[in-house]
Amino acid sequence: MSLKIALAQINFLVGNITANIDNIIASAIHARDRLHADIVVFPELTITGYPSEDLLFRADFITAANNAIYQLADQVTDIAMVVGFPESDGDNLYNSAVVLHQGVILACYRKQALPNYGVFDEQRYFTAGNQPCVFEFNGTFIGLTICEDVWKSGIIDANKQAGAEILLTLNASPFSAGKIHQREAIVCQQVKAAKIPLVYVNQVGGQDELIFDGASFVTDSHGDIVFRAEEFKEQISVVEFEGNNPVLNNCAPLYKEISSDYQALVLGIKDYVRKNGFQGALLGLSGGIDSALVLALAVDALGHDKVEAVLMPSRYTQDMSNVDAVKQADAMGVKYHYIPIAPAVNAFTDMLAEVFTGTNKDTTEENIQARCRGVILMALSNKQGKLLLTTGNKSEMSVGYATLYGDMAGGFAPIKDVPKLLVYQLALYRNSLSEVIPERVITRPPSAELAPDQIDADSLPPYDVLDPILERYVELDQSAEEIIAAGFRREDVSIAINLVDKNEYKRRQSPPGIRITSRAFGRDRRYPITSGYKGI
Amino acid sequence: MSLKIALAQINFLVGNITANIDNIIASAIHARDRLHADIVVFPELTITGYPSEDLLFRADFITAANNAIYQLADQVTDIAMVVGFPESDGDNLYNSAVVLHQGVILACYRKQALPNYGVFDEQRYFTAGNQPCVFEFNGTFIGLTICEDVWKSGIIDANKQAGAEILLTLNASPFSAGKIHQREAIVCQQVKAAKIPLVYVNQVGGQDELIFDGASFVTDSHGDIVFRAEEFKEQISVVEFEGNNPVLNNCAPLYKEISSDYQALVLGIKDYVRKNGFQGALLGLSGGIDSALVLALAVDALGHDKVEAVLMPSRYTQDMSNVDAVKQADAMGVKYHYIPIAPAVNAFTDMLAEVFTGTNKDTTEENIQARCRGVILMALSNKQGKLLLTTGNKSEMSVGYATLYGDMAGGFAPIKDVPKLLVYQLALYRNSLSEVIPERVITRPPSAELAPDQIDADSLPPYDVLDPILERYVELDQSAEEIIAAGFRREDVSIAINLVDKNEYKRRQSPPGIRITSRAFGRDRRYPITSGYKGI
Repeated sequence: MSLKIALAQINFLVGNITANIDNIIASAIHARDRLHADIVVFPELTITGYPSEDLLFRADFITAANNAIYQLADQVTDIAMVVGFPESDGDNLYNSAVVLHQGVILACYRKQALPNYGVFDEQRYFTAGNQPCVFEFNGTFIGLTICEDVWKSGIIDANKQAGAEILLTLNASPFSAGKIHQREAIVCQQVKAAKIPLVYVNQVGGQDELIFDGASFVTDSHGDIVFRAEEFKEQISVVEFEGNNPVLNNCAPLYKEISSDYQALVLGIKDYVRKNGFQGALLGLSGGIDSALVLALAVDALGHDKVEAVLMPSRYTQDMSNVDAVKQADAMGVKYHYIPIAPAVNAFTDMLAEVFTGTNKDTTEENIQARCRGVILMALSNKQGKLLLTTGNKSEMSVGYATLYGDMAGGFAPIKDVPKLLVYQLALYRNSLSEVIPERVITRPPSAELAPDQIDADSLPPYDVLDPILERYVELDQSAEEIIAAGFRREDVSIAINLVDKNEYKRRQSPPGIRITSRAFGRDRRYPITSGYKGI
Repeated sequence: MSLKIALAQINFLVGNITANIDNIIASAIHARDRLHADIVVFPELTITGYPSEDLLFRADFITAANNAIYQLADQVTDIAMVVGFPESDGDNLYNSAVVLHQGVILACYRKQALPNYGVFDEQRYFTAGNQPCVFEFNGTFIGLTICEDVWKSGIIDANKQAGAEILLTLNASPFSAGKIHQREAIVCQQVKAAKIPLVYVNQVGGQDELIFDGASFVTDSHGDIVFRAEEFKEQISVVEFEGNNPVLNNCAPLYKEISSDYQALVLGIKDYVRKNGFQGALLGLSGGIDSALVLALAVDALGHDKVEAVLMPSRYTQDMSNVDAVKQADAMGVKYHYIPIAPAVNAFTDMLAEVFTGTNKDTTEENIQARCRGVILMALSNKQGKLLLTTGNKSEMSVGYATLYGDMAGGFAPIKDVPKLLVYQLALYRNSLSEVIPERVITRPPSAELAPDQIDADSLPPYDVLDPILERYVELDQSAEEIIAAGFRREDVSIAINLVDKNEYKRRQSPPGIRITSRAFGRDRRYPITSGYKGI
C-alpha cells in the first residue's frame, strides 16, 4: 500500500494568521492536485509563524490562532493537513500539531521537549505535553513530533512503542554555519536506533535575526536520507511510501558552507526588507571590505535597482577608497550619491570649540565624523523609505570597534554575526561567481579612515589572531586561561577580552542582524551591561 | 530559647564575585559583632549578584562561584551565614542557598520554583530542585526557600511538614509600582495558611533595567509583619525570635507610591552611573517636562556637581524654553552649556539639497535637528566620560514619538518606563519637596519643537487618553475591542495601537532604562520587529 506525503517547506510571516491560513490552503491544494499527496506536512507553529515571541501572551492572538484551526479544517478536503499552532486549553498553552482531514481533527499532539536555551524561550510560553500521539491514516500508523522532540532521546522510541510506523516532524530549526550536518546526523542517528522512517519539514525564510534554511528531508528506517528539499527556498515536494519504506526520490545536494553562509545572508536581507515593507535599501560605501560585501549581498537580495550606495569621504579618506567604491557601484549597476562630510564635521567642530577648549583630540573627534555619516544616511533612509543597512562585522561588534549612532546607525546589520576573516572569504566567494568587488578592496589593510593613516591593526590584534580568540570567548565560553593555553599570547587575549567585556552597552543598541554562527549577539547571548565580571 | 536572625539587605555588583565575598564577610561580621546575631541571611544568588544572565554559562564563572562558598565557609565563625549561589553538581546548575557555620556547610537547598516569565529567564540556566531543606540550628528547625518558592502554593507547606519552625527566604524581587503590596500580601497569606513565621531578605540596588527595592521583612506565624527594613536602602537588621515567635521590632512605614517611584528612579540612575564607572551624567535640557524631570532625578541621584545640562535651541525653540531651562539649571546648581544647533542643521541641509531636490519637507528634516543634538551630546559624553541620559518617556517609546540616534541617543533612559501622565505627577511630587522645576514647564502644552508651532497633540491623542490605552495594550495585553469596549474612541485606539505595533524597531535600539511598571519594554516585552500582527 502506498502513501504520498508532501513536505510544505514554506516561508510564513510571523503574526499574520490570515495570510498564513491562505498560504496553508494554497499549499495544501497544490500538494493534493499537483503532487497527488495524501498528507501534507507543514512546519512548526504554521498558523502563527515562528517565533511569535510575546505575541503569544495576547489573548486575542491565541484565540484567532485556535479559531483558525477550525476554520481551516473544512477548507481543503481529500488531503490530510498536518499543521502547527499554539493550542490553548483555557489554562495552558501548548506548542501543538493537529491533523485535519475531511473537516475533522484526526489527532492533536503537544510538543514535549521545549527548548529554552540559545535563541529559544519556549518555556516562557508553553507547557510541555507528556505523551506521544499516533494516529491511523489509510491503514498506516503515523506518529507526530515537533522539532526539539527528535533531538532528545526517548521521544522517537516512545512513538515506535506506541505503534508508529512513520514519524512526522514539524520544525522551525534555525540556520547556523554547519548546523545542517549536525541536524541531519542527530536525527538520522535517532531514527536508525528506533528503526522508523521520518519526514522532517522545516520552515524557510528570515525572521528578524533568524534564518530558517529549509532543507527538509525524509529518512528511511536505516537513517539514510532518501529525499532532501532545497536549502533557503520555498518548495513543496512529495515522497511516496511503500508500506513504511520511503521510495528514493531526489536529494538536493548540500551547499558548501561558504555558499550556505552567503545564501543565508542574502535571504536574511531579502526577507527583512520584504516583510517589513521597505522600498529598498541603502548603505554607506566606504571602499572598505565590509561595505563592499554588504553591497554585494544587498544587490543579490533585492536587485540593483532597489539599492543605493552613499559615498561620504572625509579628509582622511584615501583616493583609492572613493575610486574603488565607485568601481563597485558601477560594476553592480547601483546608483550612488557622493556627499563629502566636511561641512557638517566643521560645523560641529566650531560649535564645540568653546566647550572643548584645552582638551586633546581623542576618539570623540573620530566619532563625530562617523555620526555625521549616520545623520546623512538616516536622512536618505527617512526621505525615501529605504532600509539603511549597517556594515559592521562581528569582530567589530565584539570589541566595540564601531561608533554608536555613527556606522552603527541603521535598521538592519546583515554581517553583524560575520567575523572579519569570514567577511574576506565571503567576498572572495562572491567574486568567484562574478567579479564585483575590486581586488584592492580585498587586499588593502582594513582601516576605519577616521584619523590620519589609521589602520585597524593600530588598535586591535591582527584579525587572524583576534577572530579565533573571539570565537573561543564569545561562542565557546572559554576562559582566558583556556585560550592562552591553546597558544594565544596573553596580551592579545587580554586586549580582546577586555574590549568584549566593556562593550556590551554598544551591542545592546545595535540594530538586529542575521545570525549565522552558533552564538550571535542579541537574544542568543544575554549579558548584563552593568557587570563586575572580568574575563581576564 | 532565643534566636537572633539578621537580614542583610545589601547592594551587590553582578559578576564581581571577589567584591561580593568581601561584602558578605563584612556584613556577617557586622551582624555578629554589632547586632549579636546568630544567623545572617543574604539575598538570592548573593555570590554572583542577580541576575547574572548568560555569565552563568561560563564555566570559569561557575567554578569561581562554587569555590567562593568553600573559601567563605571558614572566613567568619560564630555566626551562621545563609548565602545564595549558582550550585554546580557537574551536570546541572541549581539556584541554591547554603548555610555556612564554623567552617562547614550545614545545609544546602535548591530552588524549586524557577520563574521564566516577565524579566525572568531562570529555566534558561537552572535545573529545579525537588525537595525542601530543613536544618537544625541551636535546637530550632529552620527551612530554606528562595524567592518564587514562597509565591507558589505548596512549598511553604512542605517545609512545615518537614518540621520547619521558622522559614528563611532569599530573594531578588524587583520593584514595580505597587509590587510591594502584592508581594507582602501573597507571602503573608501563604505564611498565615501554613502557620509558620518567615524571614524575607530582598536585595537592594539597580542592575541595568531592574531596581531591587529591599523592604525585607519578617512575619509571625499569623502572617502579620513584625519588622520591615527600609525601601531602596542598604540595611543590616536583626530580629529576635523567642521560640518561633519573632519579637515585634521596627516596621519602616511604606512610602506612598509616587515617592517609591521617584526613589526607584533615583536609585536606578545612581547605581547605573556608579557601577559602570561614569564620571557623572549629562543631558539635553529643552525646557520641556521630560528633560526637567530627568535633570531633577539625576541631581538627586548624583549631586549637582556631577550633572551637566546642555541647551541646544533651534529656530523652532521658543524663548520660554530657554528661559525655563536656565531657570531650572540655576535652581539646581547645575552647570549648563548653550549650543544652538543651526550651524550643523544648515550644513546638513546644504549637503542634502541636491539629493532632496523636488522632495517635500517631512519628518526627515525634524529628525535631522534631533540628530544634530544627539551628535553634540555624544561628543560631550565621549570627551568627558559622562553618561548621556536620554529623556524620552514611556508614552513616546510606545508610539515611537522620538528620533532614533537623536533624542534617543544616550547610554541610559531613566524615564523610559514612565508614562507621560506619571512624568507630570513625579514633577509635581519633586516640586513638593523643594521647587526646582519651573511651573510653566509643567503647565505648558508638551511639544517636540521640531517644526513651527508644533505640539504633541497634533500627532497623538491627548495623554490622558493615550496613556490608559497604552497601559491596556502594552501592559495588560488587552485587544483593541476590549479597549474600545472600556470606553475609548476607536480612532484614538487605532492611532495608538498602530503606532505601538510599527515602532518595535525603534524600541529595539533604545538604551536600557529603569523598569517601574508591571511590564517595561526590553527583556520584559519581547516582540518581533518583523511581524504581520495588527492589533487593530
